[in-house]
Amino acid sequence: MTRKQLISQIKKKKSYLCVGLDTDITKIPKHLLKYKDPILEFNKQIIDATHDLCIAYKPNLAFYELYGAKGWITLQKTIDHIPSSLFKIADAKRGDIGNTSGMYAKAFFENMNFDALTIAPYMGEDSILPFLEIKNKWVIILGLTSNKGSRDFQFLDTDKKPLFQNVIEKCMEYGTPENTMFVIGATHEKIFKEIRQFCPEHFFLVPGVGAQGGDLEKLSAYGMNRDCGLIVNATRSIIYASGEKDFAEKARAEVLSLQQIMKTRLMGD
Amino acid sequence: MTRKQLISQIKKKKSYLCVGLDTDITKIPKHLLKYKDPILEFNKQIIDATHDLCIAYKPNLAFYELYGAKGWITLQKTIDHIPSSLFKIADAKRGDIGNTSGMYAKAFFENMNFDALTIAPYMGEDSILPFLEIKNKWVIILGLTSNKGSRDFQFLDTDKKPLFQNVIEKCMEYGTPENTMFVIGATHEKIFKEIRQFCPEHFFLVPGVGAQGGDLEKLSAYGMNRDCGLIVNATRSIIYASGEKDFAEKARAEVLSLQQIMKTRLMGD
Repeated sequence: MTRKQLISQIKKKKSYLCVGLDTDITKIPKHLLKYKDPILEFNKQIIDATHDLCIAYKPNLAFYELYGAKGWITLQKTIDHIPSSLFKIADAKRGDIGNTSGMYAKAFFENMNFDALTIAPYMGEDSILPFLEIKNKWVIILGLTSNKGSRDFQFLDTDKKPLFQNVIEKCMEYGTPENTMFVIGATHEKIFKEIRQFCPEHFFLVPGVGAQGGDLEKLSAYGMNRDCGLIVNATRSIIYASGEKDFAEKARAEVLSLQQIMKTRLMGD
Repeated sequence: MTRKQLISQIKKKKSYLCVGLDTDITKIPKHLLKYKDPILEFNKQIIDATHDLCIAYKPNLAFYELYGAKGWITLQKTIDHIPSSLFKIADAKRGDIGNTSGMYAKAFFENMNFDALTIAPYMGEDSILPFLEIKNKWVIILGLTSNKGSRDFQFLDTDKKPLFQNVIEKCMEYGTPENTMFVIGATHEKIFKEIRQFCPEHFFLVPGVGAQGGDLEKLSAYGMNRDCGLIVNATRSIIYASGEKDFAEKARAEVLSLQQIMKTRLMGD
C-alpha cells in the first residue's frame, strides 16, 4: 500500500484506528471453542464487525507462534480474511543481520502479503535496509515503546539527546516517509510534540491506547500532522470488550466510540 | 539445561562450538531436492555428522518462517532430531511488552523445547523477565552484534560508556549467570577483554566466526572465563563447506578443525 492510498483510507473512513488481533484463547467467548479453529473464528467475526470503521489490523505474532505450524495457518487465514483496502501490520519486532532480514522480508511481505512489519532497531542499518527493497511495503521501527521497560534504555542520554531520538533520526536516513514509520507509545503522549519537531512527516504507529492507558485525545492533539500521520492501535479494550456471545457487537461499539473521537480530530484539521 | 550441564558438555567434548542451522534451499546440494522436505533432510545429515564435536545448534527462525506453517514443521522436526544432551538455541531475536513476551516464552521453551532464545533488549526489563520465569531455560540478550550496523547504535556514548555496556550491565540485574547470556559478535574480538572486566561470569554466544570473518583464536584468548564462558557459533563455513553429495562429510571436517582449536584453548586453561 502506498502512502497516498493509506491517507485516502483515513479520509474516507474518518478514522486512523488499527485493531490489534492479539487473540488469546483463554480470553475469547467459550461458545467459540466448539469451532475447529476458535481463534480464526473469533478474528473473522471481529474483522467483519469492525472493518468499515478502522483502517488497519495488527496481529502480534507471539499469539500465533504459540501454536507453531497451526498458529501460522490461523494467521495466514486471518490475513486472507481482511479486505484488501485495509493496512495489514505484522507486529513481529524482527531485526537481524542483512541476509537474514532479507528472509524475514520475503516471509512477511511476499509470502504472507502483509503491508508492514514492526522492526527492532538495535542492530542498525543492515537489519533494516533489506525490508525497504520491496516496493509499497513498510517498516515500522520501534522508536519509543509504550511499556514500562521503555524507560530502561530508550531515554538514555546519547549525544545530548535521548536514545529514541537518535534512533529515529538515524532511521529517517535509511528510508523515506513513503516506506518508514515509527512506533511511538501512547503512554508517552506529551513527548509527541517534541518528536514532531524532528520527525514532522512520518506516520507513527501508536500502541497503548485502552488497556495500557494512553489518552487518544491528547496524543492526537500532539502527534497529528497535515496528513494525519497517526495509526492508533487498540487491542484488549476492543477485542475483549465482552466475553460473551455479543463480543463482536461490543467490539464494534468500542471501535465506534474511538472512531467518533478520531472523526472530530480529523475534521478539526 | 543447567549451567552445570552445559559446562560438563563442554569439558567432555572439548568443544564450545555451536552450529548454525540457517538452511537456505538455494544453497543446499541439488540431490536433496528430491526429498519431501529437503531442508529437514539437510539438517538431519548435518546433525548426524557433527553432534559429537559440537555442544549446541542454533537455527535462525527467519529461514523457517520463510515457509510459513511448513517451515515451522521443519523446525520442530529439526529440533526433535537433535540429541537431548545438546543445547538448542532459537535465534529469533524476539522482544515485546510483558504479556506478549510471556507468549513467546511458552512458544519456544515449553511447546518447542528450545533451551535458549535470543532477545533484542530495546524494550527493556518487562520484555525480558517473562522468559526468566521458566526454570532451566536461558535468554541470550543482544549485547554487541557481529554485523556492520552494530556501529550505528550499540557504540553510542551513554553515561560515559557505550550503549552495549549499559545494556549488558542493566540486563545482568534482571537475571543471573545461570539463566542469562549475551550475544557478543566475533568481529569485535578486541573488545572481549573489556567486556570481561564488567561481565566476568556470564556465558557469551559468539556469532561471526567463519563467513563473517571473526578470529576464533583471538576471541577465545580474550573472552574465555574459568568455566569457558563461550559458545562460538559458525554457520555458513560449516553447513555450506561443500555444495555436493559430500556436504555432511565436509561439514564434519570443518567442525573438527574448529574443535581442534577449541580443544587446545580449553586445555591451556
